[in-house]
Amino acid sequence: MSNWFTLRWSEDGVVLLDQRRLPLEEVYLTLGSVEEVAKAIESLAVRGAPAIGCAAALGVARAACVSEARDLVALRADLDAAVARLSRTRPTAVNLFWALGRMGELADAALAEPDASVESVRDRLVAAAQRLLAEDVTVCRAIGLAGLPLVPEGARILTHCNAGALATAGYGTALGMVRAAFEAGRHIRVLADETRPYLQGARLTAWELQRDGIPVTVITDNMAAHLMRCAEIDLIVVGADRIAANGDVANKIGTYGLAVLAREHGIPFYVAAPISTLDLATPCGDAIPIEERGRAEIAEVSSRPILPEGVPVRHPAFDITPARLVTAIVTERGVARAPYSLSLAKHSGASR
Amino acid sequence: MSNWFTLRWSEDGVVLLDQRRLPLEEVYLTLGSVEEVAKAIESLAVRGAPAIGCAAALGVARAACVSEARDLVALRADLDAAVARLSRTRPTAVNLFWALGRMGELADAALAEPDASVESVRDRLVAAAQRLLAEDVTVCRAIGLAGLPLVPEGARILTHCNAGALATAGYGTALGMVRAAFEAGRHIRVLADETRPYLQGARLTAWELQRDGIPVTVITDNMAAHLMRCAEIDLIVVGADRIAANGDVANKIGTYGLAVLAREHGIPFYVAAPISTLDLATPCGDAIPIEERGRAEIAEVSSRPILPEGVPVRHPAFDITPARLVTAIVTERGVARAPYSLSLAKHSGASR
Repeated sequence: MSNWFTLRWSEDGVVLLDQRRLPLEEVYLTLGSVEEVAKAIESLAVRGAPAIGCAAALGVARAACVSEARDLVALRADLDAAVARLSRTRPTAVNLFWALGRMGELADAALAEPDASVESVRDRLVAAAQRLLAEDVTVCRAIGLAGLPLVPEGARILTHCNAGALATAGYGTALGMVRAAFEAGRHIRVLADETRPYLQGARLTAWELQRDGIPVTVITDNMAAHLMRCAEIDLIVVGADRIAANGDVANKIGTYGLAVLAREHGIPFYVAAPISTLDLATPCGDAIPIEERGRAEIAEVSSRPILPEGVPVRHPAFDITPARLVTAIVTERGVARAPYSLSLAKHSGASR
Repeated sequence: MSNWFTLRWSEDGVVLLDQRRLPLEEVYLTLGSVEEVAKAIESLAVRGAPAIGCAAALGVARAACVSEARDLVALRADLDAAVARLSRTRPTAVNLFWALGRMGELADAALAEPDASVESVRDRLVAAAQRLLAEDVTVCRAIGLAGLPLVPEGARILTHCNAGALATAGYGTALGMVRAAFEAGRHIRVLADETRPYLQGARLTAWELQRDGIPVTVITDNMAAHLMRCAEIDLIVVGADRIAANGDVANKIGTYGLAVLAREHGIPFYVAAPISTLDLATPCGDAIPIEERGRAEIAEVSSRPILPEGVPVRHPAFDITPARLVTAIVTERGVARAPYSLSLAKHSGASR
C-alpha cells in the first residue's frame, strides 16, 4: 500500500479517509469528538467490520484525551459513555463490540493500577488503540498467507463488497488473500461485484486494487451468476461481519446468493476474517441481528433520485450464509473447514 | 392503464415515452425518421422485447411514409433498407426480428398486388403496424388471464427488470400476470429488483405499478436471495427476450441467478412471454446471441461516475436460464410446462 491510509491516530483526533467520497475525492476527516467518530461509523464514512472496530478503539482513546475529568471516577464515567455511544452505531459487525470490549477491559486494568492517574489511563488507551490498528494489519497479512494455498496461479477471483485495506487498518481480509497471491507473483484477476446500494465494490474495491496495480474488473451484482455459468470465475472470497459458532456467516447483503450460486457451479466459496470476527457466543446465524438501513441509500445514487417518489424499499444491509455453503474460513491462524463448530473453536482457543 | 402510453403511431412520426428519463420526467419523443427510431432502440429510449418489436414495426411504416419513392421498386428498396437498419439495433430480443419479418412479408404481399401503388403499400403498412400494437395489448391481456391460476391470493411476487406496459404496447407480460391478478381482486404485492445497470425495476416497474395503484417495493438485485431465505417471496415472474425451442430463456442479466435461487428455495419461477418471443429455430439457449453493452451504463448513474477512471467493466446485457429451472412458461395460449420442446411447439403451432 502506498500513499494513503484507511484510518489512524493523531494528536488532533481520529483521522480517516472519507469512504463516502471515494473514488471521486480523497478527503481525510479529523474527528475530534466521540460523537463525530460515532456519526462517521453510522454514516459509512468508515465501514468494514475490522475498520469499524479500529475506529471505535480510536474513539475510546479520543474520549480519554478530550475528557475533562480530574479524577478516575469521572474519567471512567466518560469512558463508559463513549463505549455506550459507539456500541450503538451499528449492530451486525461483531468486531465493533470486540474492540470496545478490549478497550473497556484495558481501561479497567489501567484504572485499577495502584498509581493510576487520568494521564496514565489516557496514555495507556492511546497506545492500546494504536496497537490494535497495528495488530489488525499483521492479522490481515497472516490471513493472506494462510489463504495463499487456496489461490491457484491464474485464478479469476470474484469478491463482493469491500473486504480490503479500506475495510481494515490496512491490507484487508478477502483482499488480503488477493494481495498475498499477487505479491507471491500469481497472475490473478479480480472481478468486483459493484455491491449495491452503497457500491463498495465499484467505489472502494476497484479503487484500492487499481492503486496497487492488481487487475480488477467491475460487474453489477446480478452478473455474477452468468459469469459462473460461463466458467469465468474460479473462486469466490468475501469478508465477514460476524461468524457464529457453527460457521454461519453474516456479511454484506448479496453474499448469501453468491454462496448458493457457487455451490450450484462447483466453485469454492471462501470467507476471510480475523478471529475477532468470530462470535462463539452466538450459536448460529439466525441469532445475528441484521441491520436495516434507510431508504435514501437505495433511492438515490450520488444524491440523485432513481426511484419514483413515495415508492418504498427494503434495505437489509447484511445476510446470513449458512455454514454448509462455506468451503473454508480463513483466519490469521489458518484455514478452518467443516465441521466449523470444532474448527472455529480450535482457531479461537489458540489465542487463550 | 391511465394517462400515458409506451408508444404509438401518429401522422408526425413514431411517438414514444422516453424511458431513459423516467421516473423523473415524462417526455414523449416524436421520431420522424427510421434512423431516429433505430437510435431510440439502441439507446434504450424504448426497450423490452415486445416494445422493441412494436417500435420496429412502426419504424417500417414510418419508412413507407417518408419514402420519396415514386415507384414500387424504389419503395421496396427504401423498405428493405429500413428493415436492415432496424434489424441491426439489438441482437438478443427475437421479437424485433419477428416484427420486422411480419412487416416485410406484409410489404411483399402489398407490393405484389395487381393494383399496388406507393400509396396503397404505405396505407397497408401503417395499418399493419397499428394492428400489431393493438394485438400486442390483446396478447398481454391473454397472458395475464392464462397466468391467473398461478398467482394465489396474497402472493408476494418478485419480478426482475421491467416486463410491464412499458416493455410492450401496453399491459405487460410478467406485469400482465400481476395486473390480471390485481384486477381479479387478489391482494398481491410486488417486489421489484432494481435491475442494474439500467435500473428498469427501480425506474420503470416501480413507476408503472405505482401509477396503477399496485403495491410495489423496490430492492437491490442482491437482496432477492436473502428475502427468499426469509420466506418473503412466494413466486417469481419475469419476461423474456427470446425462448429457444427447448425452453431455455434469454432475459435481462440477473434472471438466471434468480432461477437458481428459486430452485434452491422451492419457489416457482415463471416466465411470461408472447408466442412472438418463441424462437423455435434456435435449438437451445447457448445459440442465442448475448448483447454486450458499453461501459458507461455501469460506470455512471444519472451521468455521474461511480467507478474510478480507467477501471474496466463487463457488461453482458442478458443471460440464459436453462429450461430445467423454469417452472412454467405462460403465453397467450396458456401455461406451457416441461418438456418444453413439446409444449412450446404445440403453443406455437396453434397459430398456424
